[in-house]
Amino acid sequence: MAIASIEKLTTQLARLPGVGHKTAQRLAYHLLSVPKEQAQELSEAINDAREKVHPCPICGAFTDLDTCEICADPRRTEETVCVVSDARDVLSMEKTREFRGHYHVLNGSLSPMNGIGPGALRINALIERCKSGQVKEVILATNPDVEGEATAAYIAKLLKPMGIVTSRIAHGIPIGGNLEYTDEVTLAKALEGRRIL
Amino acid sequence: MAIASIEKLTTQLARLPGVGHKTAQRLAYHLLSVPKEQAQELSEAINDAREKVHPCPICGAFTDLDTCEICADPRRTEETVCVVSDARDVLSMEKTREFRGHYHVLNGSLSPMNGIGPGALRINALIERCKSGQVKEVILATNPDVEGEATAAYIAKLLKPMGIVTSRIAHGIPIGGNLEYTDEVTLAKALEGRRIL
Repeated sequence: MAIASIEKLTTQLARLPGVGHKTAQRLAYHLLSVPKEQAQELSEAINDAREKVHPCPICGAFTDLDTCEICADPRRTEETVCVVSDARDVLSMEKTREFRGHYHVLNGSLSPMNGIGPGALRINALIERCKSGQVKEVILATNPDVEGEATAAYIAKLLKPMGIVTSRIAHGIPIGGNLEYTDEVTLAKALEGRRIL
Repeated sequence: MAIASIEKLTTQLARLPGVGHKTAQRLAYHLLSVPKEQAQELSEAINDAREKVHPCPICGAFTDLDTCEICADPRRTEETVCVVSDARDVLSMEKTREFRGHYHVLNGSLSPMNGIGPGALRINALIERCKSGQVKEVILATNPDVEGEATAAYIAKLLKPMGIVTSRIAHGIPIGGNLEYTDEVTLAKALEGRRIL
């Protein structure tokens, strides 16, 4: 009953993040059940995106232009650079409509256990950008996990001697959250980061 | 920040079952981050599967041959036909290694609410197969939900006048399950289906 093409499709789908063998199989059978055009549309969308989209040479976010819309926008200030781990995080930050500076995508977080050192990230490119003299503040918006914190601390240490203000986004209770259901680490961070009213 | 190719890829991925917009976006960004070859391998696997795989003209299960391996296997008996809703269910049944008959895939379950009547399923093809006289028993292995039960009942009603034994797979407590955590409907079915030892 092993059909080579289905097995191959399942294997490829199982390489997607969060997709296990069982889900991959379900997706493979789904792609075989839908109209052929629908399956082709997905396959074309993958190829098309890979043809047209590439990382912006300045910030590292994805773009289909020479320089991404954000880096090319003259209304945005170059004085503030927000550092994120992944290109997708730029989308999340942009949704807030609060940030009008530039971005810098690291393409990951420091993770010595997985062999990801500073050289594997776009940290050197960040330092070069900061050397231009236009950057006044670097906001470190890596994730609040072990790797993200280590990455933020590492970058802060590099930028300090350069006289650049480095800040870290706040950790605390999410809006709509609830003291009772907030874990103690977050609560401790919220207490530590309290602001005088 | 809206990049047409990424939006298009996200839309296509969101058409997969169990994939919402957020997951689709995560998958799209993943496909942009991996080596180009890996994304191409997925896209090729989709096209390749759609080129080579088609439903078996007899049972409706997927195959890359003229007739599927199961229908073509002379060691399997044509006297018993196991009816399942989806091609994927054939895989699950085969894993038991208990069934040595043939299959019949309906391509769905009766669902009048969604406009899926008997004509939309491969029920006529099943009746035609049964008319050949070789089929002695039809095992109805549709899912134990409202649609699956209705489909099984509908098919049983059609087959009875033809003198064919129709059976339904047993419902009860799964092996490794636990009375305490079994819902009352399953428990009632288990009681109803009890066997004398």
